Amino acid sequence: MAKKKTNSDSSSSKKTKNDVAVGVVGSGSFATAIVKMLVENCKTVHWCVRNEFVKGAIELRGHNPTYLTAVNFNLKNLKLTTDVNELVTACDVVVLATPSIYLSDTLDKMTCECKDKIFVSAIKGIIPKVNDVVAHYLKEEFQIGFRNQAVIAGPCHAEEVAMERLSYLTVATVEEEVSEKLVNIFNSDFIKVNSSKDILGNEYSAILKNIFAIGAGIASGLGYGDNFTAVFVSNAIREMETFLEAIYEAPRDVNESAYLGDLLVTAYSLFSRNRNLGNLIGKGYTVKSAIQSMNMVAEGYYAADSIYKTARQKKLELPIIETVYGILYEGKNAEKQFKKLTAKLN
Amino acid sequence: MAKKKTNSDSSSSKKTKNDVAVGVVGSGSFATAIVKMLVENCKTVHWCVRNEFVKGAIELRGHNPTYLTAVNFNLKNLKLTTDVNELVTACDVVVLATPSIYLSDTLDKMTCECKDKIFVSAIKGIIPKVNDVVAHYLKEEFQIGFRNQAVIAGPCHAEEVAMERLSYLTVATVEEEVSEKLVNIFNSDFIKVNSSKDILGNEYSAILKNIFAIGAGIASGLGYGDNFTAVFVSNAIREMETFLEAIYEAPRDVNESAYLGDLLVTAYSLFSRNRNLGNLIGKGYTVKSAIQSMNMVAEGYYAADSIYKTARQKKLELPIIETVYGILYEGKNAEKQFKKLTAKLN
Repeated sequence: MAKKKTNSDSSSSKKTKNDVAVGVVGSGSFATAIVKMLVENCKTVHWCVRNEFVKGAIELRGHNPTYLTAVNFNLKNLKLTTDVNELVTACDVVVLATPSIYLSDTLDKMTCECKDKIFVSAIKGIIPKVNDVVAHYLKEEFQIGFRNQAVIAGPCHAEEVAMERLSYLTVATVEEEVSEKLVNIFNSDFIKVNSSKDILGNEYSAILKNIFAIGAGIASGLGYGDNFTAVFVSNAIREMETFLEAIYEAPRDVNESAYLGDLLVTAYSLFSRNRNLGNLIGKGYTVKSAIQSMNMVAEGYYAADSIYKTARQKKLELPIIETVYGILYEGKNAEKQFKKLTAKLN
Repeated sequence: MAKKKTNSDSSSSKKTKNDVAVGVVGSGSFATAIVKMLVENCKTVHWCVRNEFVKGAIELRGHNPTYLTAVNFNLKNLKLTTDVNELVTACDVVVLATPSIYLSDTLDKMTCECKDKIFVSAIKGIIPKVNDVVAHYLKEEFQIGFRNQAVIAGPCHAEEVAMERLSYLTVATVEEEVSEKLVNIFNSDFIKVNSSKDILGNEYSAILKNIFAIGAGIASGLGYGDNFTAVFVSNAIREMETFLEAIYEAPRDVNESAYLGDLLVTAYSLFSRNRNLGNLIGKGYTVKSAIQSMNMVAEGYYAADSIYKTARQKKLELPIIETVYGILYEGKNAEKQFKKLTAKLN
């Protein structure tokens, strides 16, 4: 698919821009996509990037030097920094969008006042430092309560956001007022926003789907076809439901876009790095060499370890999660493990 | 994907074959795939094909002249006929696998005793003559009770069965004994069979998914991407649940393979003729020219009319079904209709 060159230049748009002081932490592809979404609606978007090189490159060229390079920003809409304290102090809403394994490196430096800010997690993984999800990490390490938190979820590959292809996001937060504010700053011609109150369910589902996508990729790499993938995914959504109910009971329909939709896009799309990791393993790469051959983090790899252990603690039967864990962490043979798995699916 | 030449020759297999007198009516791709499944387990498979040309061609070459031509049969396992009475009289189990629009042409000729036979529908469409599903048609026209009926469903593209890629089928029937018999004759190294009691739910879901697949194809033809497709499919499965609950309440989980899995394979697979029909329409073909350009029947086209009318009668809100119906039958513009639809999805 050809990439469309897009111009995220607010001056070309005639709608009234929003004054919300919003910032994004992270400079990967999803962080860049989020900045693109926000400049549609906000006069200024604060952006805390990884280092001076990235900051300088964006200031020089008007686009991220490594990810979504086709997205051009008007620099007058951006306030770039490499200092998380500067960003948090300047903002009311802080969107966290680093890979999960790097979040604590950044937030460990956060010494400014932060309890009254709204923290929005766009991270889809487990924080290794605490072996827990972002919502719990923010609450325990920084005393940021659930009322000041939100999760954004949904089938939203950054690459398609860059191309302004219509995508749907779900904002999960318990406070009505926070929800309204977030819906307003994310909604645009190419982003439609749903709201939800299920913070933890949305966060866990976004994590689980990456593990299932690795599994779907392994199946594809091993030569299983479309018929099998469909069965695999329909078992995966049922495993997701079992896990979510055990972790956090709430009124939810796992067939909503944030749960099933996100699983589908990750399990079926060729943009999915988790699926690609699995595909390499299915084709015979060792886990180590498959990881090394990718230049992006496949969140599902780290998530599989934590989620598998939680599932075991809770005595849940999740054959796909167990199978993927065994292949990734116990050196088990992918072909044999999938052969065994086929007998457990239905 | 390269087609694998497969040899459905029972003599090469060492397992004991089954004595069930089973027959298949139909000579399209799914009928051919079903014959391939059955010769794995049954000594003889009766096969009622469309006409003498097809019969002669199979007898001469050992394969269907038009569909799944790579599947070679050992003729000593087949008993070919063009006479439905001959087939039904000789069999205890009759699998119906014609396109839905041709079934009544064939069964109108059925004058033999048939009430004690087991009729298994592998048809995924509405019978135009009665504007109803196969289960009702068999009951009303031929007094074949539900206890003598079954439906086979599930994500099972014929093309992958031909390649012996692992696929899962669901056999839906109310009688335990019938279920066991059918599981035994379909289960094989490449077919795993689940059982269900939800005859009508499985039949309607197989019909609905074809309409949704046309919709997914239209979206793709119009240029919507993977993020949107995921949202579309997650809305489609919820529409399916709404429809099934209104038609026939039963304990069912629509995330099982026969419902969601079948929807996924049809909406995502490039083998899907319904998706391909939609794709052509999305790319700007008229409905008529899109249908003419395909040499296979897209069941969803016929189903959309009947299902839409049923949904209206029952006052169900099914935006995807309405949209696809409007494009197929009311000459509405696909691009405009999908633009409207995007506001109704979530």
